[in-house]
Parts: sequence; C-alpha cells; structure tokens
Amino acid sequence: MFARSLITSSLFALSLTTQAFEALPTTPEVPADNPMTAEKIELGKQLFFDPRLSKDGTISCNSCHNVMSGGTDNRSVSVGVGGLKGGRSAPTVWNSAFLSTQFWDGRAATLEDQAKGPILAGVEMAMPSPEAAVERIKSIPGYVESFKTVFGGSDPVTYDNIAKAIATYERTLITSNSPFDRYIRGDKTAMSKAAINGMKTVESLGCTSCHNGPNFSGPKLAKGEGFFQKFPTFSGSEYESKYDLTSDLGRHNVTKNNADKNMWRVPTWRNVALTAPYFHNGSVETLEEAIRVMGKTQLNKDLSETQVADISAFLNSLTGEFPPQTMPRLPDYQNSSLVAID
Amino acid sequence: MFARSLITSSLFALSLTTQAFEALPTTPEVPADNPMTAEKIELGKQLFFDPRLSKDGTISCNSCHNVMSGGTDNRSVSVGVGGLKGGRSAPTVWNSAFLSTQFWDGRAATLEDQAKGPILAGVEMAMPSPEAAVERIKSIPGYVESFKTVFGGSDPVTYDNIAKAIATYERTLITSNSPFDRYIRGDKTAMSKAAINGMKTVESLGCTSCHNGPNFSGPKLAKGEGFFQKFPTFSGSEYESKYDLTSDLGRHNVTKNNADKNMWRVPTWRNVALTAPYFHNGSVETLEEAIRVMGKTQLNKDLSETQVADISAFLNSLTGEFPPQTMPRLPDYQNSSLVAID
Repeated sequence: MFARSLITSSLFALSLTTQAFEALPTTPEVPADNPMTAEKIELGKQLFFDPRLSKDGTISCNSCHNVMSGGTDNRSVSVGVGGLKGGRSAPTVWNSAFLSTQFWDGRAATLEDQAKGPILAGVEMAMPSPEAAVERIKSIPGYVESFKTVFGGSDPVTYDNIAKAIATYERTLITSNSPFDRYIRGDKTAMSKAAINGMKTVESLGCTSCHNGPNFSGPKLAKGEGFFQKFPTFSGSEYESKYDLTSDLGRHNVTKNNADKNMWRVPTWRNVALTAPYFHNGSVETLEEAIRVMGKTQLNKDLSETQVADISAFLNSLTGEFPPQTMPRLPDYQNSSLVAID
Repeated sequence: MFARSLITSSLFALSLTTQAFEALPTTPEVPADNPMTAEKIELGKQLFFDPRLSKDGTISCNSCHNVMSGGTDNRSVSVGVGGLKGGRSAPTVWNSAFLSTQFWDGRAATLEDQAKGPILAGVEMAMPSPEAAVERIKSIPGYVESFKTVFGGSDPVTYDNIAKAIATYERTLITSNSPFDRYIRGDKTAMSKAAINGMKTVESLGCTSCHNGPNFSGPKLAKGEGFFQKFPTFSGSEYESKYDLTSDLGRHNVTKNNADKNMWRVPTWRNVALTAPYFHNGSVETLEEAIRVMGKTQLNKDLSETQVADISAFLNSLTGEFPPQTMPRLPDYQNSSLVAID
C-alpha cells in the first residue's frame, strides 16, 4: 500500500485535467478470488443487515451505513454497542466498490478487508474475536446452508468468507444515472444552470485536482494504492480550530510516517448531499460550509457565496439513483437467542 | 379498557374449548378511521425503518421489532438511544394486528396508540415531544409530499398521522400458512407427530384456556379490551425468584388496582420459536424452559420432558411464512443532517 504524496497527486491532477468528469460505471471491478453470484449477493445482504454479527445483537453494518438512505448514519460519529461512540464519521457504503482503499485512512485495501474491521471494533459491533463471529454465524442453520451453497468445501463458514459475502453485496451498491451522469452522457437538460456553473467552478478552482475520476475520489489506482491528500493543506485558517481538523493524524496512525500526518483518503463526491455531516470527524454540519472549508484549507481561497451555491448545486447533481432492493430475510435461530444476555 | 379477571377468563376458556384451534386470518381488521391504502402502507414502512424518528438518529421501530426476523430483537430487554436499556422485552410486531390491546400491560388499545409510545420513551427513541417528532418529519420534503398524498388536508404531518401510517404498515405484517395453519385447514401431513401430540397436550393440560383464538393470545375482544392473566398464577415455585417474575407488577402499573398486580396480557404463540428470550422481562433463555415455567406457574404442574418436547414441537409448528418485502427508500434530507450533533 503506497501513499501518494502531495507532489505526485499534483502530477496526477495535471495529467487528468482533461478527464476530470466521467460517468459512473454501472458495474464494479470484481476481484478474481471473489466472483459475484446471485446467491453470494443475497448471503452478503443478509449478513450486512444482521445485528447478530454484533456482540449484543443491536448493531448491523447497516446501522451506520444505512442502505435505505445515503449509506451513512448522518451522524458526526457513529454509535456502536453499548452506546459507545466511534472516533470518525461513517463513510458511505454506496459506490465504495470504486475506491482503491477503504476507511478514511486507507488502512484496508479492499472491501473484503474493510468488512472485517467494524465487526471486531469495540466501539462498533464489538465481537470479541473473528472466531466468535464465525461461531455465531455457524450456530444459525440457514447461514450454514447458504455458505455451503455459495462457497462449498468442508468448512465454508469462515471469517474470510463472511467478509467476502458482505463485500460482494456492497459491490451491488452503485448509484448510476445522477443528473451529472445524464449530462455527461449528452442530456444537456439534466443539470441546472447553477450546477453547470458549479462544474466549471470546481475545475477552474482546482478542486478536481483531487476529486476526479468517475467517483470523484481520485484517479483509478491499483487496489490498496490509496489516493491521499493533506487536510488542511493550507494551515492556519479559522476553520482548523473551529472544526478540530488536525488533532486526528489520519493516515499517520497507520504508517507512523511523519509525511502522512493529517493525510486522508480523498472522499467521494457521489451522493455527498446525502451524507452530512462532513469530514473525517463529522464536525461540519452543512454542505455549503464544507465547501467553504475546502476552499480555504485546500486551495487557500475564500469562495464567494455564488461560488459556494454553484458548487453545492453541482454536488447535488451527483446524487444518483438508488436501485430498488428486496428486504433480506434473516435466517432463523429457533427456541433460544444468540444475543439475549449481555 | 377492562381487565378480564382470572374467573372470567376461566369462563371464557370453557366456552372456547371447542374452538381453541383456528387458522390465522390472512387480513387484519381495519379501523374505520384509518383505512389501508398502498401509499399509506409504504409511508408507514418508511417511518417504521427511519432512525430519524429517534433523537440521535440511531434507533428505528425496526431496531427492536426486527421485521427481517421474528419481529423482536431477541434480547432480554431492548437497547435504545445512548445505550439505555428498557424495562421489558420487546414483543413481536408480526401479527400484532390481531391483538386487542398493545404492550405487555395493555396500556394502548390500538396499534395507532402503541406507535406513539416508543418514539417518546427516554430509553427507546427519546424524542423530547410529539411536536419534536412532527418537526423532524416535516423537515423532510419527501415525507411532507407523501403525507399530503396519503392524508390530505392543509397540515397532514401530525403525530396522529405518523402513528396511523406506522399502524397501517404493521397491519400488513401477518405470517400465514404455518404448518399448524396448513394442518388445521386439512393437510394432515403438515405437522410432525410430536407437534400433533403437543397440540393435544396444550389442550388437555389447559394451556389453551388462555392461549386460544387464531393468534393464541385469547378470545376476540373489542379493541382496548385486554385479555389478561396473572403470572405467576400459582406462586411460590422456584422459578419465581430464579427469573424475577414478580417484581414488575405489570397491568397494575397502568390501573393501580390491587387486582391487577402481576397481571399481564396473554402473549401470542405465533412465531414464538423465533422470539426468545421469553416473558415480560426476557429472563428465560429457551422455549423449553419457558414451557416448564408456564406449566408450573400457571397450571401448578411439573411437565414431563416428553410433554415439554411435544409442546415445543407444536409451538414450532406455529412459525408462519414471512411475506417477502421491498426495502423502503427513506426520503432524502439534503445538504445537512437532522441528527448530526448530540
């Protein structure tokens, strides 16, 4: 896993200027060792919505990454088992298939790696060990049967396979056909005048130096190769203390390299209108304020209110269509409870 | 609202012996002032799954009454906002349309009345007032539009209408066609030998004195007229202290009548295999132990292990078919969060 430095990311930006705007693909890349099948998607959906993957049966993946809305919990930081709060704001699960690294600090290369984290995190789902999660799932006959069908082999219920199924479901969570996508494909009526102005503004200001590519989260990189940026790049603005932007060292927590202090994965702009509050600590309540903060901290510019409104209109045009879904039926556990007693 | 005394409930039992076993209706009774429409069901489903109806955006109706499984959280007591625990075990939402009173103590006459409780309960969804809940929903444009379509009028987003929509969705949550229902309709292969034995046993022992009618929760009564029973009826067994059966006074908390001490609504047997742990305080982990406790405390009988196994087989035959559902799409709130900051 490599962190792109500020310099290389600027080079990237130059080479990518002409293709800052791309429609979102309708299908994800699929890892060779985890092909997608209908049965695996359904199994992954069950696991994603199953609170029995948490210690006390109260938290599922969906609790913080709500697929029924923008893929987050719209909270500054998430609430896990026992009312405990996490340290960072939940990123959206929608279109996460298009990210080359997962988590704010890029500490997981793939969706499979990512899925293994929150299940064990004490402030999230709080299972004591991978073995405990596997034992929980193995206790549920319907899951055992599905894992056999999906993965085969003599012992298909493994922590790796739990993660593979969840990741497979997540790869279906793609929001195509936003007004922007329709516009870029040729429907010039799909975006408002303000949104079109905003699109020009983000390019001319330089926002798309980082927020480019179909997911507006940077260039296409090999899985595990993150696209990071320093935030704030320009230090000393009023926002820094107002929103506590620097106390979490971001990528540095993973690598311990000084160069990675306050480096963060460039987040997607897709559906950003639905994922307030903003930034790694969820400290900024509104999209317009987030735009002002980014202008100042990343470009050293005080944006005009017109620029802010236009950029907001453009970002709102990146809200896609959320594919209709059936509700999973969680496999029964009969005559007793797996989560009853704390 | 009237509490049936032990004496009247026994009289009921006598008169009902011949019809202790009835198939579950496939449609609910619908109150005249809250007719069901497809739009209202969909709106109610959105509200049922929307965590924005809780103070901090973490708890929806579905958090404790999980429609994707047996309609409960399978916990002894539920966990609400801030990790706070409630005092009683969440009853299942499935087939709640067939109950003549709601809550363990029957303090709500209808599903509409019931829906108004947890939203405001400090240990559940913790909204500070009905007005705050209405304001929250009114802030979300998609809801305002749906309430207009569903309820009409100049000010359709009201606390009453929120409850009416949720109740309407809940009336669709019916699990027909259990093995028992197929058996009682003539398919004599639908139930196992043990289950058939269990069916005879619950009748001969007298369990169906209370657990009768299509929902096995007592006779059909006018809405608001609860069917209550004292639990334990026979005091002094080892179970009383072991499972703390008497410290919660049940119906007495509502009426303050001495006669209502430790009186509880007779709960449904439908899908009871999926709703462990058992009783108002969720203190009993397994269905078999719950059967033993009921035999001793309600009938003063020490059931044999064969009786327990047969009754368990019968109760498992009451697990119905859960109708497939589409996942609701929660109406968007854009560019800011309604629940971001605690």
